[in-house]
Amino acid sequence: MPALSERKIVEVCYAPSHFPLYDNGFDIVVVIDVLRATSAITTGLHCGIKEIIPINSVEKAVDYKSKGYITAAERDGQVVEGFDFGNSPYAFMNPDLVGKTVVLTTTNGTNAIEVAKDKSTVVIGCLNNLTYLSNWLIAQNKNVLILASGWKEKMNLEDTICAGAIADILLETRKFVSNEDSTISAKFLYRSARDNFYSFLRASSHRKRLMKLKIQKDVKYCLTLDTVPCIPILRDGRLVKLEIDNA
Amino acid sequence: MPALSERKIVEVCYAPSHFPLYDNGFDIVVVIDVLRATSAITTGLHCGIKEIIPINSVEKAVDYKSKGYITAAERDGQVVEGFDFGNSPYAFMNPDLVGKTVVLTTTNGTNAIEVAKDKSTVVIGCLNNLTYLSNWLIAQNKNVLILASGWKEKMNLEDTICAGAIADILLETRKFVSNEDSTISAKFLYRSARDNFYSFLRASSHRKRLMKLKIQKDVKYCLTLDTVPCIPILRDGRLVKLEIDNA
Repeated sequence: MPALSERKIVEVCYAPSHFPLYDNGFDIVVVIDVLRATSAITTGLHCGIKEIIPINSVEKAVDYKSKGYITAAERDGQVVEGFDFGNSPYAFMNPDLVGKTVVLTTTNGTNAIEVAKDKSTVVIGCLNNLTYLSNWLIAQNKNVLILASGWKEKMNLEDTICAGAIADILLETRKFVSNEDSTISAKFLYRSARDNFYSFLRASSHRKRLMKLKIQKDVKYCLTLDTVPCIPILRDGRLVKLEIDNA
Repeated sequence: MPALSERKIVEVCYAPSHFPLYDNGFDIVVVIDVLRATSAITTGLHCGIKEIIPINSVEKAVDYKSKGYITAAERDGQVVEGFDFGNSPYAFMNPDLVGKTVVLTTTNGTNAIEVAKDKSTVVIGCLNNLTYLSNWLIAQNKNVLILASGWKEKMNLEDTICAGAIADILLETRKFVSNEDSTISAKFLYRSARDNFYSFLRASSHRKRLMKLKIQKDVKYCLTLDTVPCIPILRDGRLVKLEIDNA
């Protein structure tokens, strides 16, 4: 076990607006938006999409679309009118997208990426790549900030629980420490939830929002652990699949 | 049980800077700063202090002191140099203060009061008055926002747990509903912690901070439930004891 002073830091931040309170000496930022942006991004790159350009406004998306890009846009859980698709992970499994560039804007997730992008290495996390990503983070031996996208700057349960899961795995190695109560709380919430995410998250406000939109299949997909061995990483404003052997 | 549409709302907000995201249609705001401002305020009014004037800057405190007011000031857990005392609840039990006006500024709690004061009825909560306050809130049958003071705009564990305890008691009556994940999370954290606050909060960042200051006696006092049947209420910028019979 490394001496306390040699351990790396892992912390959880609940929403992009809080990022400036935490942003201090972190080498890697993990952006989380379980329902559904980061689950879709991870799935899409795993299924062969060449790269995903995350952007933070519908206006920019309109621009990209007019230039001929395949463009996905979601606001408030629905596909924005006039766009090819939104942030359903199933849309990102489409074989027609293999080898292509996709532009994506979502309500919360792409905003979180925007906030983090100039600061550190940015990677994408979700429940689908939980263990795979966590093992990679442990191997990097660097300070990690887990940035939950939340819902319109409020915390949300599913992102906090996913962030708490990553923090818990890192802290259990004793190679990491945390000093923030947000991290301790996220870890406790994950531990309360881990035996049955789907049932635990029945209470979540966002899931209720999505239930109204009748996308239970997406929700179930996004709440399933360790199905996608892929880590999206931001390089020059584009998310690409991290090739672990060359990382 | 009231019909869903007739139930009142209870929500938890984790820090004063998030207050504008939540501030919508709440009749009562409960300000929480367990370690130690709201525990000290509640104790002081219960022990006979006539009124406490909460202010949000040391500069204003200097002004009040120069005018002859008994003035308490705490920053970062310590009494500010030149002031009579800080926010130790034991200092607020002093018999010399009975019938007197006390001016108070603290790192987080008085800032939270300042943020909330123009919006709604403001009352003070802590673990010491948990059940007494919760029963009063239930009797009011109004929408309640529980505002945790946090630590310098970050969430903290002890305020979140206290807020979650109040929310849990109100929700259990089925006379209240909540829609926010922050409320659900606070409730789960309280339920994880309730069998042993002191041990659960061993992990808390602020308690670690206070341990360094050697005020374990204060911490133990503040983490003890239902010792003080008193609800401080803000009236014309001054906190006074709510007289329940006349309320």
